[in-house]
Amino acid sequence: MSTAWTSRYALRTKAVKSSAIRELLKITQRPEVISFAGGLPAPDVFPTERFREACCRVLEQKAKLALQYGATEGYEPLREMIARHTSRYGIKAKPENVLITSGSQQALDLIGKLLINPGDRILIEAPTYLGALQAFTVYGAEYVSVPCDDHGIRTDLLDKPLRSGPKFMYILPNFQNPGGTTLSEGRRHELVLLADRFGIPIIEDDPYGQLRYEGEHLPPLVVLDRKNLRRDNGYSIGNVIYLSTFSKTLAPGLRLGWIIAPPEVIAKLVQLKQGADLHTSTFIQMLAYEVARDNFLDEHVKLIRRVYGERRDVMLAALQEFFPPEVTWTHPQGGLFLWVTLPEGMNSQKLFEAGLKENVAFVPGDSFYPNGQEGLGHLRLNFSNAEPQQIREGIRRLSIAVKRQMQELHLIDALLQSHN
Amino acid sequence: MSTAWTSRYALRTKAVKSSAIRELLKITQRPEVISFAGGLPAPDVFPTERFREACCRVLEQKAKLALQYGATEGYEPLREMIARHTSRYGIKAKPENVLITSGSQQALDLIGKLLINPGDRILIEAPTYLGALQAFTVYGAEYVSVPCDDHGIRTDLLDKPLRSGPKFMYILPNFQNPGGTTLSEGRRHELVLLADRFGIPIIEDDPYGQLRYEGEHLPPLVVLDRKNLRRDNGYSIGNVIYLSTFSKTLAPGLRLGWIIAPPEVIAKLVQLKQGADLHTSTFIQMLAYEVARDNFLDEHVKLIRRVYGERRDVMLAALQEFFPPEVTWTHPQGGLFLWVTLPEGMNSQKLFEAGLKENVAFVPGDSFYPNGQEGLGHLRLNFSNAEPQQIREGIRRLSIAVKRQMQELHLIDALLQSHN
Repeated sequence: MSTAWTSRYALRTKAVKSSAIRELLKITQRPEVISFAGGLPAPDVFPTERFREACCRVLEQKAKLALQYGATEGYEPLREMIARHTSRYGIKAKPENVLITSGSQQALDLIGKLLINPGDRILIEAPTYLGALQAFTVYGAEYVSVPCDDHGIRTDLLDKPLRSGPKFMYILPNFQNPGGTTLSEGRRHELVLLADRFGIPIIEDDPYGQLRYEGEHLPPLVVLDRKNLRRDNGYSIGNVIYLSTFSKTLAPGLRLGWIIAPPEVIAKLVQLKQGADLHTSTFIQMLAYEVARDNFLDEHVKLIRRVYGERRDVMLAALQEFFPPEVTWTHPQGGLFLWVTLPEGMNSQKLFEAGLKENVAFVPGDSFYPNGQEGLGHLRLNFSNAEPQQIREGIRRLSIAVKRQMQELHLIDALLQSHN
Repeated sequence: MSTAWTSRYALRTKAVKSSAIRELLKITQRPEVISFAGGLPAPDVFPTERFREACCRVLEQKAKLALQYGATEGYEPLREMIARHTSRYGIKAKPENVLITSGSQQALDLIGKLLINPGDRILIEAPTYLGALQAFTVYGAEYVSVPCDDHGIRTDLLDKPLRSGPKFMYILPNFQNPGGTTLSEGRRHELVLLADRFGIPIIEDDPYGQLRYEGEHLPPLVVLDRKNLRRDNGYSIGNVIYLSTFSKTLAPGLRLGWIIAPPEVIAKLVQLKQGADLHTSTFIQMLAYEVARDNFLDEHVKLIRRVYGERRDVMLAALQEFFPPEVTWTHPQGGLFLWVTLPEGMNSQKLFEAGLKENVAFVPGDSFYPNGQEGLGHLRLNFSNAEPQQIREGIRRLSIAVKRQMQELHLIDALLQSHN
């Protein structure tokens, strides 16, 4: 009878595969493994004591509200706080521009539900966030990939992809996952101009924007969008929907993100969220508000920048020290990840197996492409979760696996040449 | 440019309307209004102090786990607890049969995503839970409605609807929302036999099963399903997927529900949940576990039964006292709602407006039918949220609106007759 269910699955379901990363995470949780695989924040920086105080305050003063059903749009003071925080970067957001979501992942799911008909093409960066691929694919999305370099998506290559009529562009401008690269200011201007010229909107996903370890904050696309700049009465129209989250600044276990969009789009997303989960936990929203308020979040982010910035530096130094010169990697100015490119012929899936034997883990690059093959020459390393000493040791272990695989490849090459 | 978004909405989105109830709730939140509209638990019964203690315990002992990303399937001790609780009603559930969801509403959304292709017919009770209609409609569901009487869905009328090949049946056996009726034991047996004979699975939604104020607990469909009864090694196959929630026994503000299904179905739902929100808040899951453990939930449910049972009795007595004999209503053995049938010719939407003038609110019956017109002769009353004195006063106010509308109708009738 098991098969009676199988035979009833909807078409969209049959296309969905389990996230490789989440399955990997299970394997790599053995204590002897140093894992660069997940995108996990460092648990040491969670502001636990402030959370405890906030829980007490919410339950002593507002328990009947916190434990009851709430509005789908979200907890009003939290929406106001997010609108205020967003406004300081130049966008005139109001609470009615804000929808609270159950993590950024739900934002991606709702946007897929809102915009994607089966067969619609979505313009993505190559590589891109695999959770977005997962969220969009279930609604029947197909993809137009545009390559990235050290300055983000190649805007000089956008003309033809935009002419092919994608439904929207999905862009991670800051410290991209998995690339670790940041879209340059010049390209940001180009991108919003192209969006306007072709009438192709942008979904701007910005989970890491606050976590910058060097350089200056760059304006988000939603701010540069001329459609918005022209308006004085708040963010009522525009080509860009902006997403962010508390997962990297407070704690991912909350599952709390948000969407900034014109009110008319928010209204539609609210209807879809009603059907999806009624609303995000009232208690969690009030808790996050109590923790973040009175500028705590700004202060706390400074601590995170210090801790993660050091870990990034340790990883970059260890790569320099241990890795052979044929391997290259990106230099992220912030965020949680860097992206390694292997020499021609090497395969990151095989390297993953070799790495596990050395008790070190990462995510092979194929997860970040709709067509996985493209990514097999790359791998993603996370530097936020492990402690500095562990990072150095992990990179040392990984370098052993890399060198061994390179040697094997040279042996094969030599063998092939000797046969010629 | 607003319209540029509008023109990009997916087909599925255009079909979705905002939940009438959630919009109504906003109108009816004026303090002078006595509202029987929502499905809100009584905030006085929230175990606030126990929540406060549990928060402290989780954050003192397990903060790093509680604030971090977690497994999509859910927090293992919570899954075990739910499997154990479910098992005492006769189903051999194991943790791998349990998926934690962000409220029962997410369970409905994931099931829609898993099973419904556009145009698929879903067999529903008439009337039925409007949140299910909302969740299924977005995936392109169409509906085959089967009427209910005081003993639940009319199993004697199921033959033809089942022959029309629905994808599944959606059934609320206990204290149905909105009907307040309970499916009799005989019909439960018939229903699982029919499901087996026609090969049409059942989604059994049971948010209120614990809240029984009279009579004996009846076995869930998932327990009666012969497919399961035959098996000794746990719930691995079967025609029934079972849903429940902590919203009515602990607190709806948690947004915490669960799905019980064969492991093979759970695995598919896990993939869809990954794309939808990665996982439900780790902190909320650990909190619910700490609150519910050591049999607290069983004790707490006794308190809820006492409070809501009294409120039901007060509402039934007030209806008897104030309402004209032409109006009838159901006698719920549990749950949160009862269902009122108006005399021929009366319209519950018009009555809603008249009720608001008397400062009393309810949900007109059309919300609970895919074709709203059918429900205009009915209304749903909630008896869990208002206090007993308020309930009596609210029913008194409502009776004024009812009588006035009946008089107007009689006047029109009289007028029409005098013209003949």
